[in-house]
Amino acid sequence: MALLMAKRAAASSSSSAMKSVSAAAAIWMRSYAKVAVGTDIVSAAPNVSLQKARTWDEGVSSKFSTTPLNHIFKDKKVVIFGLPGAYTGVCSNKHVPGYKENIDKFKAKGIDSVICVAVNDPYTMNAWAEKLEANNAIEFYGDFDGSFHKSLDLVVDLSGALLGTRSQRWSAYVVDGKVKALNVEEAPSDVKVSGADTILGQI
Amino acid sequence: MALLMAKRAAASSSSSAMKSVSAAAAIWMRSYAKVAVGTDIVSAAPNVSLQKARTWDEGVSSKFSTTPLNHIFKDKKVVIFGLPGAYTGVCSNKHVPGYKENIDKFKAKGIDSVICVAVNDPYTMNAWAEKLEANNAIEFYGDFDGSFHKSLDLVVDLSGALLGTRSQRWSAYVVDGKVKALNVEEAPSDVKVSGADTILGQI
Repeated sequence: MALLMAKRAAASSSSSAMKSVSAAAAIWMRSYAKVAVGTDIVSAAPNVSLQKARTWDEGVSSKFSTTPLNHIFKDKKVVIFGLPGAYTGVCSNKHVPGYKENIDKFKAKGIDSVICVAVNDPYTMNAWAEKLEANNAIEFYGDFDGSFHKSLDLVVDLSGALLGTRSQRWSAYVVDGKVKALNVEEAPSDVKVSGADTILGQI
Repeated sequence: MALLMAKRAAASSSSSAMKSVSAAAAIWMRSYAKVAVGTDIVSAAPNVSLQKARTWDEGVSSKFSTTPLNHIFKDKKVVIFGLPGAYTGVCSNKHVPGYKENIDKFKAKGIDSVICVAVNDPYTMNAWAEKLEANNAIEFYGDFDGSFHKSLDLVVDLSGALLGTRSQRWSAYVVDGKVKALNVEEAPSDVKVSGADTILGQI
């Protein structure tokens, strides 16, 4: 219980820090088209790739290859969720574990891939996924330069939390590239609408 | 031996990727004053802070505090080394361990702090330091927005290695803020001049 309260306090406190920079972030985000239900993600983010989580040595042997969005979404039913960063509290303690624990329910509903993405490099994402023991259930991708999240207008300046420009906390159900359901948290520290339970009910 | 060769191959291959973007990086780095022997780091990077590595929960309880350079360098003998990123191969396998293994020699020479810094957030730096079991010997700091390395003209675009704008690989011996010795690798994948052995000979 003490731990739970500590987490809540942490979420609350970090929420303030995260909110304090949202106005500045909103200004430079306006040039991007906001993702919504009905958006074709592949068209909305042309020429954007994600980077599959891997070790550095795997990165080298893959010649630092990236994965076009087309490969991720075409002809597939995908649940994708984004979060502010590897090794941040709410992401590690609540958001990812919720998807990991429900992976059988997603598969039973015909979901091909459950994907976690963040504005991190793919080596950090890989190490974090291993630490969470979630890399067998969930596919992790880095968006190292934020181009995916910028294209979808899902970035926020979290410099106040020592993170820089990162992703909002969000989830989407995507069929053949088309967004069928979308949930974006008001504050990146919240997991009110972007958790596994919500999107399971939307599939 | 196979492992060693794999590491060398990794270093060699990543060197090419890292070099390929250096020309573009050089252009936008020109506006910064290059750090050199004799530079006062605190003056060269005014109003710049680093972020002590910590868990997310510690970040929240610290109110996301940062550490002014003055606190790190004033009246102290410091060995500081920078590298392209947490969870990248050469950094994890060679650069950090070299400093960790020689910590007693640094202390015997009167060094107050041996510091590792990278363009990463402090939570990722903390997790990486724990994984390397190096956080008792070495102080780890994040430079999450790259402002420290930009001020010293020590950044390089490593987008080709899926990292984005990161630090060169470098080391310095700094007394009361003044750079007494400086070693910057030609390629970020090298550890030819920035390792512990070299700077031990310069103190």
